[in-house]
Amino acid sequence: MLTCNYKVHPKDVDFAGRMTVVALGDYILQTAGEDADSRGFGVRDLEKRDSTWVLSRFAIETERTMSEHEYFSITTWVESLDRIFTTRHHEVRDSSGNVTARATTQWSVINRTTRSLVSLEWLDCATEPRDIGISRPRRLRLAPSYSLEERHRVRYSDIDFNGHTNTTRYIGWMLDMVGMEKLERRTVKRLDANFIKESRYGETLVLRLDETDDESVFAVVSDSPVMFASIAWG
Amino acid sequence: MLTCNYKVHPKDVDFAGRMTVVALGDYILQTAGEDADSRGFGVRDLEKRDSTWVLSRFAIETERTMSEHEYFSITTWVESLDRIFTTRHHEVRDSSGNVTARATTQWSVINRTTRSLVSLEWLDCATEPRDIGISRPRRLRLAPSYSLEERHRVRYSDIDFNGHTNTTRYIGWMLDMVGMEKLERRTVKRLDANFIKESRYGETLVLRLDETDDESVFAVVSDSPVMFASIAWG
Repeated sequence: MLTCNYKVHPKDVDFAGRMTVVALGDYILQTAGEDADSRGFGVRDLEKRDSTWVLSRFAIETERTMSEHEYFSITTWVESLDRIFTTRHHEVRDSSGNVTARATTQWSVINRTTRSLVSLEWLDCATEPRDIGISRPRRLRLAPSYSLEERHRVRYSDIDFNGHTNTTRYIGWMLDMVGMEKLERRTVKRLDANFIKESRYGETLVLRLDETDDESVFAVVSDSPVMFASIAWG
Repeated sequence: MLTCNYKVHPKDVDFAGRMTVVALGDYILQTAGEDADSRGFGVRDLEKRDSTWVLSRFAIETERTMSEHEYFSITTWVESLDRIFTTRHHEVRDSSGNVTARATTQWSVINRTTRSLVSLEWLDCATEPRDIGISRPRRLRLAPSYSLEERHRVRYSDIDFNGHTNTTRYIGWMLDMVGMEKLERRTVKRLDANFIKESRYGETLVLRLDETDDESVFAVVSDSPVMFASIAWG
C-alpha cells in the first residue's frame, strides 16, 4: 500500500477550473506505478524480464470533482492476483480526508517483443482484499450502432513509454466527442474502460460515440476493436 | 525567486522514455504560477481585478533531454517588468545540479471580460535581471509558404482555465505534425513561440508546418494568425 500527495495544478483542470478525469486518471496510474516500483515489480523490474505492465480494464467513480489548487492524496494497493490478472484499488481523498473518487484497475503483463500475455505466477506480491464500495470494471461490447463517428491517426503525442497509445488519451478523445455542452452541465459519475488491443503510431482509428442523456458509450476500432468505454453521467 | 522539485513521471515521456517538451513546458509554467501565487500576484489575485495572466512569447533551450524517473528542479524569477510586459527566467537542473534547460517567458495581463491588455503599473514586484545565457524569444512572422497543412477544431481537452486553447497544446500539435521519424533522430535545441491572439472552443484552426533538416517553422491561423513557433533541431 502506498499513499502519494498531490495538488490540482493549472494543467489538470478544464475550462471551469475543475479537475479533468484524464488528469485524475494520470495521477491514479502514476501512483500505481510508484507502488509497484517501491515493491520491486515496477516497469523497470519487468524490463529485465523483457515484459511490461498493461492496463486491461478500469473503472472510476467520482463523489466530487476537485478544483484547481486543492490538495489531495491517492492510496493504492493490490487487491487480488491470479495467473493472468492482478487488480488494484485506488482511493482518492481531499485535504479534509473525504473520499472524492474510487477506482479499480485490472492489469496484466505482456512480453515486450511478442506483445502477448505472460503468466503472473512469478509475481510474489501481498494482496489486501479490502472492499472500497466500487464494483469491478464492467465488460463492455460493441454497440449495434453509434450516432457519431470520427477518424484519428495515432500521433507522436499519443504514444507512451510502452510504444502504444496511452490509456488516458482514449478517454480524452471520448470526452472531446462528448463535447463542452454536456461537460458544462454534467459530471462523470462512473467511467468504465476495457482495453482490447494496442494501437500504434500511424494507425488510423475509428472513434464511435453514442449517447443518451445519462450515459455515453464509446468504441475505438481499427481492423478489430481496440477499446470500449462508457460513462454514467451525474 | 522560487525553486520547485519534480520527477519525470510516465505521463511526461514519449515512446523513447524521454521527457517531452510539452511536459517540460507544463512544469515550467506551473512553477511560474506557484511563484506568482506565493508573491501575491497569481491568477487568483488577478481574478479580484477581473483580469488574468497570458503568455505572449516564450523560448526554451535544451542542454539535455531528461529521462523517466529522473528528479529535477525548476527555479524561476521575474527578470524585468515594464508597463505592458513582464519577463521571467527559468532554470531547469537535474539531480546533479547540472542545467538541462533554460527558458524565458514574456507575460501580459488581460481583462477577463474584454480580453484586452491591461497596464502592469499596479504590479509591485521585485525584479532580478540576472542573465542565464538565453536570448529573448524571437519575433516570428508568417512564412511565405508551408509544405504541410492540417485543420483542427478546438475541443474540450484543448481549453484551459483561462477559457482558451492552452499554450502547450499548440506545441503538441506542432510536434505531432513534425512526426516520429524526426523525433526519433533529433532533439529540440531551441523552441520559440509567439502567441498573437486567443483561440476558443469550436473554432477551426489551420495548422501549417514547414521544415528543413535543422529547423521547423509552424503557424496556427484562424481568420488571422493565432500563434507562430519555430524549433531549431539538435
